[in-house]
Amino acid sequence: MSTPKALFFDVFGTLMDWRSSIAREARAILEPLGHSLDWLKFADAWRGEYQPSMEEVRSGKIPFSKLDALHRMNLERILPRFAVRGLDESALENLNLAWHRLDAWPDVPLGLARLRHVYLLAPVSNGNIALMVDLARRNHLHWDAILGAEVAGDYKPKPRVYLASAEAFNLEPHQCMMVAAHSRDLAAAAQCGLKTAHVARPDEYGPGTGERGPTVPVDIAATSLENLAAKLGV
Amino acid sequence: MSTPKALFFDVFGTLMDWRSSIAREARAILEPLGHSLDWLKFADAWRGEYQPSMEEVRSGKIPFSKLDALHRMNLERILPRFAVRGLDESALENLNLAWHRLDAWPDVPLGLARLRHVYLLAPVSNGNIALMVDLARRNHLHWDAILGAEVAGDYKPKPRVYLASAEAFNLEPHQCMMVAAHSRDLAAAAQCGLKTAHVARPDEYGPGTGERGPTVPVDIAATSLENLAAKLGV
Repeated sequence: MSTPKALFFDVFGTLMDWRSSIAREARAILEPLGHSLDWLKFADAWRGEYQPSMEEVRSGKIPFSKLDALHRMNLERILPRFAVRGLDESALENLNLAWHRLDAWPDVPLGLARLRHVYLLAPVSNGNIALMVDLARRNHLHWDAILGAEVAGDYKPKPRVYLASAEAFNLEPHQCMMVAAHSRDLAAAAQCGLKTAHVARPDEYGPGTGERGPTVPVDIAATSLENLAAKLGV
Repeated sequence: MSTPKALFFDVFGTLMDWRSSIAREARAILEPLGHSLDWLKFADAWRGEYQPSMEEVRSGKIPFSKLDALHRMNLERILPRFAVRGLDESALENLNLAWHRLDAWPDVPLGLARLRHVYLLAPVSNGNIALMVDLARRNHLHWDAILGAEVAGDYKPKPRVYLASAEAFNLEPHQCMMVAAHSRDLAAAAQCGLKTAHVARPDEYGPGTGERGPTVPVDIAATSLENLAAKLGV
């Protein structure tokens, strides 16, 4: 394999433990308002609306909207299922910003810092720019640029997102490597000519629920960002 | 004045000493090929084509193209004026990348690091993403995101560039401050509702040629980024 010049990262699940972070944030906001629910189930339900809402954009049914807007629509869709009603606008907005307050998996800050010595780094996420900026500040990540859905104007796994990201760095697709915990993302990136690395996040949706390894051919299969750095010879 | 949340920076002239950098880079590439010319005049001539080439995009005469492409077109336009002919593709490309190898004014790296403790920071430049990324790596700048012309799909001082940058950070225009050494840039930003700060770069086009101060009303007039930080109370 020739060496890539840039590494592109999926964020939700690959770099960030969204599930326990969303459960924590929802509890911190809703419990003082008298709500008591299964917080992890609430996180799963919110995340469960993620792909269907993006599919409306990908299919052209609705125009491109930032993920923040889709998250808000999805939040209002699931709250009644948990019998949460009558939240005021500021509580809804604060709850929606829970996605801006995710914690990274423990290996991420140091792993990215190590990879940054050699590679250009960018998130290529479906999350919008402001969301990525807040996660980077919170978790001390140093990106070279924020790429992904908002810059491309469409959602992964549409080819435009991967190709626009390579173009933004003045690189050919084969000079870029997509890093993700999800085989579907990597298959789409490979289809566009990018190199691919799988990072196992076996606990993404709860213990033992995530992909333990890739289900599609990849250039590298790693168990953490530190392990990815080692396999890339950094 | 209410406090802004994000600072947007013009780059060429405001943060980077493009003139002596381009003169140095051109000399390093062309002198070994037997060319001897007035290197500063060459830098000025190249920069002289900058506004006219962007005007073709702003007016809708040609579709949006990255600044790297405009720089290349302008380079090929000026080389014959300096009797430089017959450069091969790799020399032309290397020369065009001189814009990716500019040095910052001496106050910039520490000034930005200081401002970053309090504000979100982004370049809002007419330079493209890859160009901004290379300048940040070279000069050790830590941006929260790369915004500006390429993300907006048009060139400053068109309003879309300032407004798209605020939107990318989920901010209202009045929560953002444009920082530039050029009154024209600041006037356009103020027209869009942004706060404005002028930084004097009196030697931009050679000793005593730049704006010693703003020629339009601004919120802050500073002599350096350190001085700007002090005036913002950082």
